[in-house]
Amino acid sequence: MANDKGFTLWFTGLSGAGKTTISLIVEQEIRDRGANIEILDGDVVRENLSKGLGFSKEDRDTNIRRIAFVADLLSRNGTPVITAAISPYREIRDEARDMMGDRFIEVYVNASVEACADRDVKGLYEKAFKGEIKEFTGVSDPYEPPLNAEVTVETENEEPEESAAKIVAYLDERGLL
Amino acid sequence: MANDKGFTLWFTGLSGAGKTTISLIVEQEIRDRGANIEILDGDVVRENLSKGLGFSKEDRDTNIRRIAFVADLLSRNGTPVITAAISPYREIRDEARDMMGDRFIEVYVNASVEACADRDVKGLYEKAFKGEIKEFTGVSDPYEPPLNAEVTVETENEEPEESAAKIVAYLDERGLL
Repeated sequence: MANDKGFTLWFTGLSGAGKTTISLIVEQEIRDRGANIEILDGDVVRENLSKGLGFSKEDRDTNIRRIAFVADLLSRNGTPVITAAISPYREIRDEARDMMGDRFIEVYVNASVEACADRDVKGLYEKAFKGEIKEFTGVSDPYEPPLNAEVTVETENEEPEESAAKIVAYLDERGLL
Repeated sequence: MANDKGFTLWFTGLSGAGKTTISLIVEQEIRDRGANIEILDGDVVRENLSKGLGFSKEDRDTNIRRIAFVADLLSRNGTPVITAAISPYREIRDEARDMMGDRFIEVYVNASVEACADRDVKGLYEKAFKGEIKEFTGVSDPYEPPLNAEVTVETENEEPEESAAKIVAYLDERGLL
């Protein structure tokens, strides 16, 4: 059994803040050290676990609870997990924290709406500002930042590699790698 | 990494055939040998991953695909899994098999509709025969038995302990425990 090495890096932040990009760098670093890791990316989860759910608060909550259920299953069996969904609501993130206890590591991927809209990698902010997408987090839907994230990365001022290094340093400090 | 020990015991069979009962005995046996294992029971999955889905073919397929997605995540990281959902459709079980390859072990928990209805542990067959439950597998909805299950247990003639022992013997033979 390798339960002692299981943890969940719970990324939270706006669309375009850098969650997926940073998760891939952290994944590579952890794999290079010879450990397994799984990424539960927001888009992948929507496809495989939550097709049919929309973006109302209720549906978002359901989506996040499913991610938490799977992250808990993996991490309690010793497999590190990164979840990379917006997860805008504090209460549901705290539910995930309560479920996983010490294994839960909240990573706030912080960038302002303006910065994310400037990047607009997927062209979603433009549509959201025009009202073509309803319930878009940070524009027409709330985002509740973490109050006590274990790690905060500032992607307006940091390169993705720097942000990833901060996260890996935290894991090292905790003796989780 | 413990990837070599990951497998999925994919139970399939009618409601009341004995899937949950046998899964719990197998779980205990595997834990007694010092390994981890997770059970993805049909009811638990409906609650945590598939709330809102019904029992149409489409919804059943979606439910089973979600179970397969999670079983694959766990087993490919070395955590043994038992799935214990009816999973009535052969095509979707074969999809799960294709996804997991050698890690997929189909266990046919075989009992006739008559035997399951006689037991009727949850009182569901009575309701199904009266038409109070629509789309009930084996009564008003199809069940497609496996053609080449790795293990078949005959719960009309075997005690649950005997069925569990057959499954554990198969795992031993494969060197998976």
